[in-house]
Amino acid sequence: MRIVIVGAVAGGASAAARARRLDENAEIILFERGEAPSFANCGLPYFVGGVIPQRDHLLVAPKQQLIDRYRLDVRTRTEVTAIDRSRQTVAVTNLETGECYEQPYDKLILSPGASPLRPPIPGANLPGVLTLRDLHDADRMQDIVSQANAAVIIGAGFIGLEMAENLVHRGLKTTVVELADQILPPWDPEMVAPVAAHLRDQGIQLRLSDAAESIEEHEGSMQVRLKSGELVPADLVVMSVGVRPENGLAVAAGLEVGSRGGICVNAQMQTSDPNIYAVGDAVEVRHFVDDSPIQIPLGGPANRQGRIAADHIFGRTSTYRGTQGTAIVGLFDMAAAMTGLSEKWLLAKKQPYEKVYVHPKHHASYYPGAESLTIKLLFHPQTAKILGAQIVGQHGVDKRIDVLAVAIQAGMTVYDLEEMELAYAPQFGSAKDPINMAGFVAAGVLRGDQPITHVDDLRTPTAAAGPFILDVRTPREFQAGHVEGATNIPIEQLRSRLDELPRDRPIAAYCQVGMRGYLATRILLQSGFSVENLSGGYVSYQRASDLPKS
Amino acid sequence: MRIVIVGAVAGGASAAARARRLDENAEIILFERGEAPSFANCGLPYFVGGVIPQRDHLLVAPKQQLIDRYRLDVRTRTEVTAIDRSRQTVAVTNLETGECYEQPYDKLILSPGASPLRPPIPGANLPGVLTLRDLHDADRMQDIVSQANAAVIIGAGFIGLEMAENLVHRGLKTTVVELADQILPPWDPEMVAPVAAHLRDQGIQLRLSDAAESIEEHEGSMQVRLKSGELVPADLVVMSVGVRPENGLAVAAGLEVGSRGGICVNAQMQTSDPNIYAVGDAVEVRHFVDDSPIQIPLGGPANRQGRIAADHIFGRTSTYRGTQGTAIVGLFDMAAAMTGLSEKWLLAKKQPYEKVYVHPKHHASYYPGAESLTIKLLFHPQTAKILGAQIVGQHGVDKRIDVLAVAIQAGMTVYDLEEMELAYAPQFGSAKDPINMAGFVAAGVLRGDQPITHVDDLRTPTAAAGPFILDVRTPREFQAGHVEGATNIPIEQLRSRLDELPRDRPIAAYCQVGMRGYLATRILLQSGFSVENLSGGYVSYQRASDLPKS
Repeated sequence: MRIVIVGAVAGGASAAARARRLDENAEIILFERGEAPSFANCGLPYFVGGVIPQRDHLLVAPKQQLIDRYRLDVRTRTEVTAIDRSRQTVAVTNLETGECYEQPYDKLILSPGASPLRPPIPGANLPGVLTLRDLHDADRMQDIVSQANAAVIIGAGFIGLEMAENLVHRGLKTTVVELADQILPPWDPEMVAPVAAHLRDQGIQLRLSDAAESIEEHEGSMQVRLKSGELVPADLVVMSVGVRPENGLAVAAGLEVGSRGGICVNAQMQTSDPNIYAVGDAVEVRHFVDDSPIQIPLGGPANRQGRIAADHIFGRTSTYRGTQGTAIVGLFDMAAAMTGLSEKWLLAKKQPYEKVYVHPKHHASYYPGAESLTIKLLFHPQTAKILGAQIVGQHGVDKRIDVLAVAIQAGMTVYDLEEMELAYAPQFGSAKDPINMAGFVAAGVLRGDQPITHVDDLRTPTAAAGPFILDVRTPREFQAGHVEGATNIPIEQLRSRLDELPRDRPIAAYCQVGMRGYLATRILLQSGFSVENLSGGYVSYQRASDLPKS
Repeated sequence: MRIVIVGAVAGGASAAARARRLDENAEIILFERGEAPSFANCGLPYFVGGVIPQRDHLLVAPKQQLIDRYRLDVRTRTEVTAIDRSRQTVAVTNLETGECYEQPYDKLILSPGASPLRPPIPGANLPGVLTLRDLHDADRMQDIVSQANAAVIIGAGFIGLEMAENLVHRGLKTTVVELADQILPPWDPEMVAPVAAHLRDQGIQLRLSDAAESIEEHEGSMQVRLKSGELVPADLVVMSVGVRPENGLAVAAGLEVGSRGGICVNAQMQTSDPNIYAVGDAVEVRHFVDDSPIQIPLGGPANRQGRIAADHIFGRTSTYRGTQGTAIVGLFDMAAAMTGLSEKWLLAKKQPYEKVYVHPKHHASYYPGAESLTIKLLFHPQTAKILGAQIVGQHGVDKRIDVLAVAIQAGMTVYDLEEMELAYAPQFGSAKDPINMAGFVAAGVLRGDQPITHVDDLRTPTAAAGPFILDVRTPREFQAGHVEGATNIPIEQLRSRLDELPRDRPIAAYCQVGMRGYLATRILLQSGFSVENLSGGYVSYQRASDLPKS
């Protein structure tokens, strides 16, 4: 068995190692265009930022180790330029020597990855305008950064924001330009608004709903001209507007690709040619939650896909279950994470959903250092199945998103979240963990115990149809800020002041985060009022108020 | 509906709040013997240690708040002394006034908790010998600590060890005496050995396999005489040898209790009298994994049980799914956590199981600050279902135990762990998360790809029958320490030195943590050798070597 693998990072390297473990006698040839196989591409921004001080730390499995331990035929600085499917060969060019040759294969695994997009604006090819994909890019960026004062980052996705943090660490005045009206565009806007505020607090200039129109040379450096008219000086411009699957080889060979360019594969990672597999950022996979075709560049799935391709080559039945889009980004002292579907996605696909917000402390509130988390939980209104979640906060974000990721994998419902027995000691969590809290609220909604409303419904009231807005917090909290038009009756007085509430009009009750609002809702429902609790309370209201009006 | 609740901490308080939310008109009477309802008992050691500086932070739901918000009839410093089941009344004594009265109930919820055991040794009742259960105990302990130099803690369970840490914080010379030959006796010994070492590093004197025989007054203070003969001076002695369910009321009323004293309940938390419920540390529940009757005092389950009892009173179908024993303890810079069944338990119950150890980094090894975790995973050899897990380490322990707790709740197998899509950025995890790693190894064992052996099998070899022990690490690693009798062939040379290995004798291969040993196992298996990989490698071997020989 001769296995040829194109691309030696993540999926390709995993496939090679797995293949070797499965068959000592297979010939396994690993082609890599770059200088190093199996490097830590997720570490590149931190290398540029100096957080990871040593370049060789990024070499997860150095070439010689792959050769000596796994007996792989590793050919770096070598590009595969074409596939001849009928003859089962690839055309190869050694980028060092220029030598060209044909390499036969029995099975071919494509792991070419995705390449950063470079918007074709004037100046996009100036030497100070970079993308970040490999070690070579990181080296060039480091060189520039060491002499730079200012940077412009185009695109506020994961890499753009991680780069922004790292450039701030390096002392650069950093501006991030994003076409969308929010950072992390695939996320729901109200969830990333606090992250954007935090980035601004750290000195990053955010230019949302704006775009770079051109990059001009200016006094030995550059300036970026924005659509808004602003001119931003930059010694370094980082293009991070997204990636495109490297499907060139696949397309030229007539393999099927999806509408967005991802190489089509089945659940065993086979392309439309059963002798050719494809894995990693270049492929189109199925979303685990709703089975939609998607392309999500993520390291974990790439590695798993590599294993699965190797398994299938050796007759095993491993199956890729789809990608559920679990991702996290740490930015200064905050983290933002998601798994499953977003509300945006559900709206776009017109799928039914319900949502709740909770803002619990990340560990017992009585133990010093408790910080708020915000959890947004999306679930199916009939089946109660968890569809997706987003979490932001300072601590414990990664833990809760992983718990919810497993819950989605297991097909769990919001009722299962109520029942979860999670590890509690005051440094780590609460007897009622934030996950339990999210479950209680969501389950209460579905059981009808707690009808809820959302900020959007409060923000566009018409005088006639809008709800009576009831603030059940303390007068002090009320005075510090409240929903426009709200009436304050503290929860402790509510039972004795029911006659102040309208019986001919719906009531929207709220407190700070939703707990007292829930109790108010219970009291009023049982007294015959029509009432809904504002999910996430005044905290959610405030966050939404900072968003652009839709 | 008149609901009477005995005990206002955790389960009792949760039941009361839930009952009120379900019925505005119910009469809900909450009896509490102590001074405060709903205090944070898990915070008491940290209050004594000064980590939680303010006493009122421990009052999770102050009495007045329960009265004002939930309209509960809260009667503190009031003891329920008897139940008359036929008349549906309880006998009550006001501990402040001495007044006695009868209180009728429609439904009674018992949440009396569990009381610390006080071994009947001479001196056990000296004024400086305390247990820690409530605020009053904590106050007394604080008073003594402020003038104390030395403390002896009897019992190395959660509370004993948390107290030890906190007394060290307060500057006391602290000795912990434990009858068992390990700390945290219900855990598996090799998993808590590193925690014991860490406690010693922090200056705590551990006396394992020892016991306090008497406590004597000595020069205005005390000394504790150990079975080993040692005399340990102490200004404070803390008894933390375990708790006993407070079943007195229940037993006197003829309610059924289990063999270890826990009040028997059904899945709706009803006792043998359908009008009487019991929740929290006083009840016997079912273990979620193997359905054994158990008593595990844990805050999360107590709260859930309280909710379920209230639900059932109001005609709802909530069901307690059993306790799975998820617990964590943080001690200085380390954490130890478990969920599900231990190996000890499985052995005692003669249940079939397989186990693996992995020692991955808690986040990407290329990112600064990566520390090792040790995960022990217990699973069923046929069904592959996860039976239990224990984790120790410095960071990320709580996250991984929660993931595994959810996996157990969902009835997942080790194959599901391979597939888990967890949040990865270099600060938070790895593309192959420690959980995935544990899954890969366990699944490899069950698929036959990776036969494994364990340290115990190496440590008692008879010269004739013992395996050939193969160390595939580097010569440098080998020289720094190796398994007795091992032969060193680095993994990179293994394929060319197969003729040095015996074909008539089983081989046990190992490396540092198990990865290279796995590859060696694959190479040798495919070359016709009989080989097993040492699970967890030399790290596991070293840990086990520190344990008392069995």
